[in-house]
Amino acid sequence: RETVCIFGTGDFGRALGHKLIQSGYPVVFGSRSPWPSSLIPKDAEVLSHAEAAQKAAIIIIAIQRQHYDFLASLEETLHGKVLVDISNNLKINQYPESNAKYLAQLVPSARVVKAFNTVSAWALQSGTLDASRQVFVCGDDTEAKQMVMDIVRALGLTPLDQGSLLAAREIENYPLQLFPLWKLPFFLSLGLTTFFFFYCLVRDVIYPCVYENKDYSFYLAISIPNRICPIMALVLLALVYLPGVLAAIIQLYRGTKYSRFPDWLDRWMLCRKQLGLVALAFASLHAIYTLVIPIRYYVRWTVEDRTISQALNNKTTPFDNTNGWLSDSYLALGILGFFLFVLLGITSLPSVSNNVNWREFRFVQSKLGYLTLILCTAHTLVYGGKWFLSPSSYRWYLPNAYMLSLIIPCVVLVVKFVLILPCLDKQLTQIRQGWE
Amino acid sequence: RETVCIFGTGDFGRALGHKLIQSGYPVVFGSRSPWPSSLIPKDAEVLSHAEAAQKAAIIIIAIQRQHYDFLASLEETLHGKVLVDISNNLKINQYPESNAKYLAQLVPSARVVKAFNTVSAWALQSGTLDASRQVFVCGDDTEAKQMVMDIVRALGLTPLDQGSLLAAREIENYPLQLFPLWKLPFFLSLGLTTFFFFYCLVRDVIYPCVYENKDYSFYLAISIPNRICPIMALVLLALVYLPGVLAAIIQLYRGTKYSRFPDWLDRWMLCRKQLGLVALAFASLHAIYTLVIPIRYYVRWTVEDRTISQALNNKTTPFDNTNGWLSDSYLALGILGFFLFVLLGITSLPSVSNNVNWREFRFVQSKLGYLTLILCTAHTLVYGGKWFLSPSSYRWYLPNAYMLSLIIPCVVLVVKFVLILPCLDKQLTQIRQGWE
Amino acid sequence: RETVCIFGTGDFGRALGHKLIQSGYPVVFGSRSPWPSSLIPKDAEVLSHAEAAQKAAIIIIAIQRQHYDFLASLEETLHGKVLVDISNNLKINQYPESNAKYLAQLVPSARVVKAFNTVSAWALQSGTLDASRQVFVCGDDTEAKQMVMDIVRALGLTPLDQGSLLAAREIENYPLQLFPLWKLPFFLSLGLTTFFFFYCLVRDVIYPCVYENKDYSFYLAISIPNRICPIMALVLLALVYLPGVLAAIIQLYRGTKYSRFPDWLDRWMLCRKQLGLVALAFASLHAIYTLVIPIRYYVRWTVEDRTISQALNNKTTPFDNTNGWLSDSYLALGILGFFLFVLLGITSLPSVSNNVNWREFRFVQSKLGYLTLILCTAHTLVYGGKWFLSPSSYRWYLPNAYMLSLIIPCVVLVVKFVLILPCLDKQLTQIRQGWE
Ligand SMILES: Cc1cc2nc3c(=O)[nH]c(=O)nc-3n(C[C@H](O)[C@H](O)[C@H](O)COP(=O)(O)OP(=O)(O)OC[C@H]3O[C@@H](n4cnc5c(N)ncnc54)[C@H](O)[C@@H]3O)c2cc1C
Ligand SMILES: Cc1cc2nc3c(=O)[nH]c(=O)nc-3n(C[C@H](O)[C@H](O)[C@H](O)COP(=O)(O)OP(=O)(O)OC[C@H]3O[C@@H](n4cnc5c(N)ncnc54)[C@H](O)[C@@H]3O)c2cc1C
Ligand SMILES: Cc1cc2nc3c(=O)[nH]c(=O)nc-3n(C[C@H](O)[C@H](O)[C@H](O)COP(=O)(O)OP(=O)(O)OC[C@H]3O[C@@H](n4cnc5c(N)ncnc54)[C@H](O)[C@@H]3O)c2cc1C
Ligand SMILES: NC(=O)c1ccc[n+]([C@@H]2O[C@H](COP(=O)([O-])OP(=O)(O)OC[C@H]3O[C@@H](n4cnc5c(N)ncnc54)[C@H](OP(=O)(O)O)[C@@H]3O)[C@@H](O)[C@H]2O)c1
Ligand SMILES: NC(=O)c1ccc[n+]([C@@H]2O[C@H](COP(=O)([O-])OP(=O)(O)OC[C@H]3O[C@@H](n4cnc5c(N)ncnc54)[C@H](OP(=O)(O)O)[C@@H]3O)[C@@H](O)[C@H]2O)c1
Ligand SMILES: NC(=O)c1ccc[n+]([C@@H]2O[C@H](COP(=O)([O-])OP(=O)(O)OC[C@H]3O[C@@H](n4cnc5c(N)ncnc54)[C@H](OP(=O)(O)O)[C@@H]3O)[C@@H](O)[C@H]2O)c1
Ligand SMILES: CCCCCCCCCCCCCCCC(=O)OC[C@H](COP(=O)(O)O)OC(=O)CCCCCCCCCCCCCCC
Ligand SMILES: CCCCCCCCCCCCCCCC(=O)OC[C@H](COP(=O)(O)O)OC(=O)CCCCCCCCCCCCCCC
Ligand SMILES: CCCCCCCCCCCCCCCC(=O)OC[C@H](COP(=O)(O)O)OC(=O)CCCCCCCCCCCCCCC
Ligand code: HEM
Ligand code: HEM
Ligand code: HEM
Repeated sequence: RETVCIFGTGDFGRALGHKLIQSGYPVVFGSRSPWPSSLIPKDAEVLSHAEAAQKAAIIIIAIQRQHYDFLASLEETLHGKVLVDISNNLKINQYPESNAKYLAQLVPSARVVKAFNTVSAWALQSGTLDASRQVFVCGDDTEAKQMVMDIVRALGLTPLDQGSLLAAREIENYPLQLFPLWKLPFFLSLGLTTFFFFYCLVRDVIYPCVYENKDYSFYLAISIPNRICPIMALVLLALVYLPGVLAAIIQLYRGTKYSRFPDWLDRWMLCRKQLGLVALAFASLHAIYTLVIPIRYYVRWTVEDRTISQALNNKTTPFDNTNGWLSDSYLALGILGFFLFVLLGITSLPSVSNNVNWREFRFVQSKLGYLTLILCTAHTLVYGGKWFLSPSSYRWYLPNAYMLSLIIPCVVLVVKFVLILPCLDKQLTQIRQGWE
Repeated sequence: RETVCIFGTGDFGRALGHKLIQSGYPVVFGSRSPWPSSLIPKDAEVLSHAEAAQKAAIIIIAIQRQHYDFLASLEETLHGKVLVDISNNLKINQYPESNAKYLAQLVPSARVVKAFNTVSAWALQSGTLDASRQVFVCGDDTEAKQMVMDIVRALGLTPLDQGSLLAAREIENYPLQLFPLWKLPFFLSLGLTTFFFFYCLVRDVIYPCVYENKDYSFYLAISIPNRICPIMALVLLALVYLPGVLAAIIQLYRGTKYSRFPDWLDRWMLCRKQLGLVALAFASLHAIYTLVIPIRYYVRWTVEDRTISQALNNKTTPFDNTNGWLSDSYLALGILGFFLFVLLGITSLPSVSNNVNWREFRFVQSKLGYLTLILCTAHTLVYGGKWFLSPSSYRWYLPNAYMLSLIIPCVVLVVKFVLILPCLDKQLTQIRQGWE
Repeated sequence: RETVCIFGTGDFGRALGHKLIQSGYPVVFGSRSPWPSSLIPKDAEVLSHAEAAQKAAIIIIAIQRQHYDFLASLEETLHGKVLVDISNNLKINQYPESNAKYLAQLVPSARVVKAFNTVSAWALQSGTLDASRQVFVCGDDTEAKQMVMDIVRALGLTPLDQGSLLAAREIENYPLQLFPLWKLPFFLSLGLTTFFFFYCLVRDVIYPCVYENKDYSFYLAISIPNRICPIMALVLLALVYLPGVLAAIIQLYRGTKYSRFPDWLDRWMLCRKQLGLVALAFASLHAIYTLVIPIRYYVRWTVEDRTISQALNNKTTPFDNTNGWLSDSYLALGILGFFLFVLLGITSLPSVSNNVNWREFRFVQSKLGYLTLILCTAHTLVYGGKWFLSPSSYRWYLPNAYMLSLIIPCVVLVVKFVLILPCLDKQLTQIRQGWE
C-alpha cells in the first residue's frame, strides 16, 4: 500500500496513524519536533513537514485550522498532492469560509479533500466507534476523493461521498449539531407540557385545596404526570397525522401537486418522525405510570379504606356489568393502541426501515399509524365518556384536560374520514397520479 | 463530474435531477415541452429528447413504461448510451417481460441498466429516505452498471448489484411486495387465534351463560384475549423449534445431509424468524394484559367483595405456603421466559445480528431459544398444573385451552431431549460434520 | 463476468457455487470425483482440480485445511492465480500459523486472499444471512483482494478490508469467539449476584426462620430476585461511570493526557457498553418483577388479611400525607430513571448510534447517563431512607442489602460533583484541550 503522511502528532494524528499502520499502510509523520516519542506508533517515521510530505501522495493535516498558515510556505512540496482536511471548529459557521476551502486557498496547487472530521480520535484509537462509522468525504478532484475513500474503507469505516468542496461547510457543521431535527418537537412538547401541567395543577390540586381544604400536593409526583403524559402522547400523535391531512386539502384545493407546500407545512412534515417518537416516549411513560397504580400507597390506602368502611356499614355494592364492560374496553383499547405505537417505533429504527420496501414502510406508518390514532382516541373517549356531560367534571368552568386533548385527534380523524370518501379520494388519486 | 440526462420532467425526474445537482452533477432534462418551468431545478437545462441525449453518456428514463415507444425513434442518438430504467408497475408480473427488458428490446444498441425503482420520488426530494436507501442495480454491461452505481453512491444511497438484466423482473416486483415472508405466519396465527377464540368463548362465556345464567360477556375485552395471547405465543414458539427437530429426525433417518428437505419443511424453516416475532408480539400483549389485571374494575370488585364477605363472616383464611410457592414460581418463570423472549427479539434486529458472528447468533437463537421454550412451558405447567386432573376444569368435556396449547411444546421438548442423548447426538454430528 | 473456480464440492463449495451462479458468474468446480451430481448446481461444470484451475483466475478453496497438501502438487497450474482461503478451525489458535498463511506457504507463487470464513454455508444457501453479512477480507496483494471484494459485493455481502495476510489469524479466530467483550461483565455480575443472593438469603429467609420460626422460603422466587436485580442494576450502572471519574483523577494528577492509562482501566473503559447493557437487563427485570407485585398470592393475602383484621377491630388508619409523598416520589424517580435507562439502551443499538454524531452520542451517553444514575440513586434513597437509622433494619448486624448498593453510586456522584466544580473542570478541560 502507498505511504500516507500525517502532519501533526496530536491526538488525532497519532490515533489515525495507529489505525493506518494496523491496516497495512506505511505511515510517516510530519511534525515541528521531528523525533520519535513513546506516544507515536513505533512503526512510523517522524520527519519534518517538508521531508514527510515528499514521501507520500496523500497528506492528512491533523492540525487545528488556526495553525494552517505555515502550509503556504510548503506550497512547492505540496504541489499536486492530496491534502486531507480533517479539522473541526468550535462553533457552527465560525469562519466565513470552510476550513477546507481555506486550506485550498492557502495551497492552491494541491488537491484538497475534506474527510474524517466526524471521527473522534479517542473512538478511533480505542475501537469503540459507536457514533462515527460514517465518514463524509467531499472534494473537487474525483481521483483524490477516490484515494481518500479507499483509505476510509480500509480502516473499516463507511465513506459517504458528499460532492464538491462546497459541501465542506455542511460537513464541518455536522459534528457540532445537537439533534437539529428534534428541536421543534422538543420545544413544542415542552410548551404543551407546561400548559397542561398548570392546567392540571389548578384543577386537581389548587381547586380541592381552595374548596375542600384538602392537601393533594402529592399528586405532583404521579397522578398529574400520568395525566399529562397520555394527553401529550395523544395530542402529538394527532399532530403527526395532521400535516398529511392538510397537505391533501391543499392539493385538492389547488387541483395540482405541482406547486410547493407552504414552508411551515414542509418543515412540519419533515419532523413527523421525531414528533411520533416523542409521542411514543410519553405513551411509554403513561403505560408504566398506569401499571404502577396499584402499588401506590395512596391507592392501596383508598381501597382498604373503602373496603373497611363498607364492611363496617355492612354494605356491599353489586357488580355493575356496564362498568365491567367500560373498564375492560378502555384498557383493552389502550393496550392495543400502545402495542401498535411500539410497532411504529420499531419500524422507525434505521436498521428495520432499511430492510422494508417503501410500500411496506408506508403501510405500517400510514395505515397502522391511523389505526393507532383511532385506538388511542377511542381509549380516551371510552375512559372519559361518561363524564363529558357531568357538571362535576367542570371546575372553575375548566373541563377535564383530556377533553381538550381530544379535539385535535377527533378533527384529524373526521377530516381523514371525509378525505377517503370515494368521490374525494378519486380526485386526490388523480392529482397525485404520478406518485407510487 | 459527467453530465447526466433525464428524460421526463415528472415527479421522479425532477426529484432525481434536484438531488443530482446537489451532488455536483450537471443535469440536462429531455422533455416533450422543452422550456424551463418553475418546478424544474433552475441549474438544469431543459431540451428536446434528442438534444438532451446527445449531451450525456447516461440517460435516466423517468417515464412510465407505456410511453416508452417514442424511444425507438431515437435509436441512433441512443447508440451506445447507458439507459437507466427506473420504472415500476402497478401489479406484480404485469407484463410478460420486465420493463428493463422491454426497453432493451426497443433500443437494442443501448446499454440498459435497471436501478432506482425502489426509491420514492417524494422521499428523494424531502430527504426522508427511511425505507429506500438500498438501490438494486442490474444490467448486462458491467461498465455501464459501474457508472450507475457511482451515481447511486454519490446520492448517499447504497447500490446492491443484483447481476444481469434477468434480475430486473424481481427488482420490479420488489417494491410491490407487502411482507411476503410474513404471510404464512400471519395466516397461521389468524387461523389459530380464531379457533382458540371460539373455544374460549364457548367455555368461558356461553357455558356459564347456559348453566349458571351469568353474563360474562365483558370477558371478551380482556380475559379472553389474555387467554388467547399467551396460548398463541406458546404454540407459535413451539412451532419455531419444531422444524429443527423434524429436520434432525429426517437427517438421522436418511443417514445423510446430502439430500434436500421436503419443500414444506424448507419453507417452514425459512419463516421461523417471522413466526418467532409474531410469538413475541403475542407474548408482549400477554405481559401487558396481565400487568393490567389489578386495575380492572372486575378484579377490584371481586377482591373487595371477597374481603367484605370474609370480614362480615368473621372468617380469615390462613396463609397457604404451597400456594405462595406456586403463585410466585409461575410468575417468576413467566418473567424470565419473557425476558429471554425479548432478548431473542433484540438479537434479530438486523443491526444487532449483523454485529454478532454466526456462532454467537446461533448460541442466542438456538440455546437461549430452547431455554425460553422450557421456561414458558414450565410457566404454563406450574400455573395450570393443579387443575389438570380436576373435573371442574372440563366443561362440556372441553379441557382448558392452555392444556391444548401445551401439547406441541411438550412434544418438541421431549423429542429434543431424546435427540441430545449422547448416542443420537454423536450420530447426528457425524452426519452434519461438514457444517460449522 | 469472469469464471470462478471452486475446489471442493462440499457444503460450502456448493452453497457458494449456487449463489455465484445466481449473481451471474460462470462457475467451475474442481473435485476429486469430477462428475456432475444432483446436488451440484446444474449450470456449473465439474472437472478435476487441475482442469478447473486452468479455467479461472480466482480459485476458492472450499476444503478443510488438513486436506490442503495436495495443492502443493498443483503449484504450476496455480501460478499467479488468486487463491481464496475460506477455512475455519475448530479451536482458537489451533495451528501455529493461520490457515491462509499455511496455504500461502504451500503455494508460494499464488496470491492468497482470506475471505468468506465468517459466512455460514447454510445461511448462504437459504438466504437467511442474519449474522454474517460482513465478510472480512485480507491479503498481501491489493489487486487480488479487490477482485475478491468485487465478488463479495456481487453476492450482496459487505466486504471489510482488514489489511495484510497477517490479519488472517484474527479473522480465523473471529467466528470461534463467543461474546468476548461480554465475559468480564458477565462474570462480574455473576459474582456480585451470588454474593447478594446469599446476603439476602441470610437476612430475609434464614434470620426469620431462626428467630421467628417463620417459613419465608417462597421469597426465593420473586422477593429475593426483586431485591438482587435492582441492586445489581444500580451497582453496575455506577461501575459504568466510575472509570470515567478515575480517568479524570489520573489525568488531573499527572497533569497530562499524553500518557497511557493503567491497563485495567483501559480494559474496564472498553467494556462499559456491555456493563451498561447488563445493568439495563437487571433493571428491566426489576421493573417487571415490581409490576407483578399486586398479582402475587402472598401480597393479595397480606392485603386482604390486614383489611379484614382492621375491619374486625373496627379500626381505620388515617391517610398519611408524608407516606403518600414518599411512596409516589420514589416510584416516580424509579420510572423516570428506567425510562432514561431504556433510552441509553436504544441509542446503543448499532443502527441508531451510527445515525447520530459523536457529540449527540456523548450527550446521551454521558449527560443523560449521569442523570439516569442520579435518578436511580435518588429512587433507592427515597425508598429506603426512612429505615437507614432504624435498628430493626439491621439483622445480625447486617444492614439492608440496598444500603450496601448505595455506596458506589454515591461515591461516583460525589466525586463527579467535585470534578465539575469550575476550578477543577477548567484544569481538566485544559489538559484535554486537543480533544473535541
Ligand atoms: C412512533 C412513530 C414513529 C414514526 N416513525 C417515522 C419514521 O421513521 N419515518 C417517517 O417518515 N415517519 C415516521 N412517523 C410519522 C408518520 O407515521 C409518517 O410520517 C406517516 O407516513 C404519515 O402518514 P400520512 O398518511 O399522514 O402521510 P402521507 O401519506 O405521507 O401523506 C401526507 C401528504 O404528503 C404527500 N405525500 C407523501 N407521500 C406521497 C406520495 N407517495 N405521493 C404523493 N404525495 C405524497 C401528500 O401530499 C400527502 O397528502 C412516525 C410516527 C410515530 C407515531
Ligand atoms: C423472538 C424470536 C426471534 C427470532 N429471530 C430469528 C432471526 O432473526 N433469524 C432466524 O434465523 N431465526 C430467528 N428465530 C427463529 C429461531 O430462533 C432460529 O431459527 C433458531 O436458530 C432455531 O434453532 P434450532 O436449534 O431449532 O434450529 P437449527 O439449529 O437451525 O437446526 C435445525 C436444522 O436445520 C439444519 N441446520 C441448520 N443449521 C445447520 C448447520 N449449521 N449445520 C447443519 N445443519 C444445520 C439442520 O439440519 C438442523 O437439524 C427467532 C425466534 C424467536 C422466538
Ligand atoms: C444502557 C447503557 C448503554 C450503554 N451503551 C454504550 C454504548 O453503546 N457505547 C459506549 O461507548 N458506552 C455505552 N455505555 C456506557 C457509558 O454510557 C458511556 O461509556 C459513557 O460515555 C461514559 O461517560 P463518562 O462521562 O463516564 O465517560 P467519558 O466522558 O468517556 O470520560 C471518561 C474518560 O475517558 C477519557 N475520554 C473519553 N472521551 C474523551 C474525549 N473526547 N476527550 C478526552 N478524554 C476523553 C477522558 O480521560 C475521560 O476522563 C452504556 C451505558 C448504559 C448504562
Ligand atoms: N481529536 C479529535 O477527536 C478530533 C476529531 C476530529 C477532528 N479533529 C481535528 O483534528 C485536528 C487536530 O486535533 P487534535 O485533537 O489532534 O489536536 P492536538 O492534540 O492539540 O494536536 C494538534 C497538533 O497540531 C500540531 N500543531 C500545533 N500547533 C502547531 C503549529 N503552530 N504549527 C504546526 N503544527 C502545529 C502539533 O503537532 P506537532 O507538535 O507534531 O507539530 C499538535 O500535536 C483539529 O483540527 C481537530 O479539529 C480532532
Ligand atoms: N414517483 C415515484 O415515487 C417513483 C418511484 C420509483 C419509480 N418511479 C417511476 O418513474 C417513472 C415516472 O414516474 P413519475 O412519478 O415521475 O410520473 P409522472 O409524474 O407522471 O411523470 C411522468 C413524466 O413522463 C413524461 N411523459 C409522460 N407521457 C409521455 C409520453 N407520452 N411521451 C414522452 N414522455 C412522457 C412526462 O415528462 P415531460 O412532460 O417532460 O415529457 C411526465 O412528466 C415511472 O415509470 C415510475 O414507475 C416513480
Ligand atoms: N460449512 C460452513 O458453514 C463453512 C463456513 C465457513 C467456512 N467453511 C470452511 O469451508 C471448508 C469446507 O467446509 P464444508 O462445510 O464445505 O465441508 P464438507 O462439506 O465436509 O466438504 C469438504 C469438501 O472438501 C473436499 N475434500 C475432502 N477431503 C479432501 C481431500 N483429502 N482432498 C481433496 N479434497 C477433499 C471434498 O470435495 P470433493 O469430494 O469434491 O473433492 C468435500 O466435499 C472448511 O475449511 C470450512 O472451515 C465452512
Ligand atoms: C405492548 C408492547 C409491544 C411490544 C411489541 C413487540 C413486537 C415485536 C414484533 C416485531 C415486529 C417487527 C416488524 C418488523 C417489520 C419487518 O418486516 O422488518 C423486517 C426486518 C428485516 O428482516 P430481514 O432481515 O428478514 O429482511 O425484520 C426485523 O427487523 C425484525 C425486527 C425485530 C424487532 C424486535 C424488537 C424487539 C424489541 C421488543 C421490545 C419489547 C418491549 C416489551 C415491553 C413489554
Ligand atoms: C423483560 C424485558 C426485558 C428487556 C430486556 C432488555 C435487555 C437489554 C440487554 C441487551 C442485550 C443485548 C445483547 C446483544 C448481543 C450483542 O453482543 O450485540 C452486539 C451489538 C453490537 O456490538 P458492537 O457495536 O460493540 O459490536 O451490541 C448491541 O447491539 C447492543 C444492543 C442493545 C440493545 C438495547 C435494546 C434496548 C431496548 C430495550 C427494550 C426494553 C423494554 C423494557 C420493557 C419493560
Ligand atoms: C419506560 C420505557 C421507556 C420506553 C422508551 C421509548 C422511547 C422511545 C423514544 C425513542 C427516542 C430515540 C432517540 C434516538 C436518537 C436519534 O436521534 O436517533 C436518530 C435515529 C436516526 O434518525 P435518522 O434516520 O432520521 O437519521 O433515529 C432513530 O433511530 C429512532 C429510533 C427509534 C427507536 C424506537 C424504539 C422502539 C422500542 C420501544 C421499546 C418500548 C418499550 C416499552 C416498554 C413499556
Ligand atoms: C398500555 C397501554 C395503556 C393502558 C393500560 C392505559 C390505561 C389508562 C388508564 C388506567 C387511564 C386512567 C388513568 C387515571 O385514572 O388517571 C388512562 C387514561 C388515559 N389514557 Fe391510557 N392507557 C394505555 C395507553 C394509552 C395510549 C397509548 C394513549 C394515547 C396515546 C393513552 C391515552 C390516555 C388518555 C388521554 C387518558 C386520560 C388521561 C387523564 O386525563 O386522566 N393511553 N389510560
Ligand atoms: C411478563 C411475563 C409473564 C407474566 C407476568 C405472566 C403471568 C401470567 C399469569 C398471571 C397468568 C394467569 C392468567 C389468568 O389468570 O388468566 C398466566 C397464564 C399463562 N401464561 Fe403467562 N406470564 C408471563 C409470560 C408468559 C410467556 C412469555 C408465555 C408463553 C409464551 C406465557 C404463557 C402463559 C400461558 C399459556 C398461560 C395460560 C393462559 C390461560 O389459559 O389462562 N406467559 N401468565
Ligand atoms: C419502572 C421503574 C421502577 C419502579 C416502578 C421501581 C419500583 C420499586 C419498588 C416498588 C421498590 C420496592 C421493592 C420492594 O418493596 O421490595 C424498589 C426498590 C428498589 N429499586 Fe426500583 N423501581 C424502578 C426502577 C429502578 C431502577 C432503574 C433502579 C436502579 C438501577 C432501581 C433500584 C432499586 C433499588 C436498589 C431498590 C431497593 C431494593 C431492595 O433492597 O428492596 N429501581 N423499586
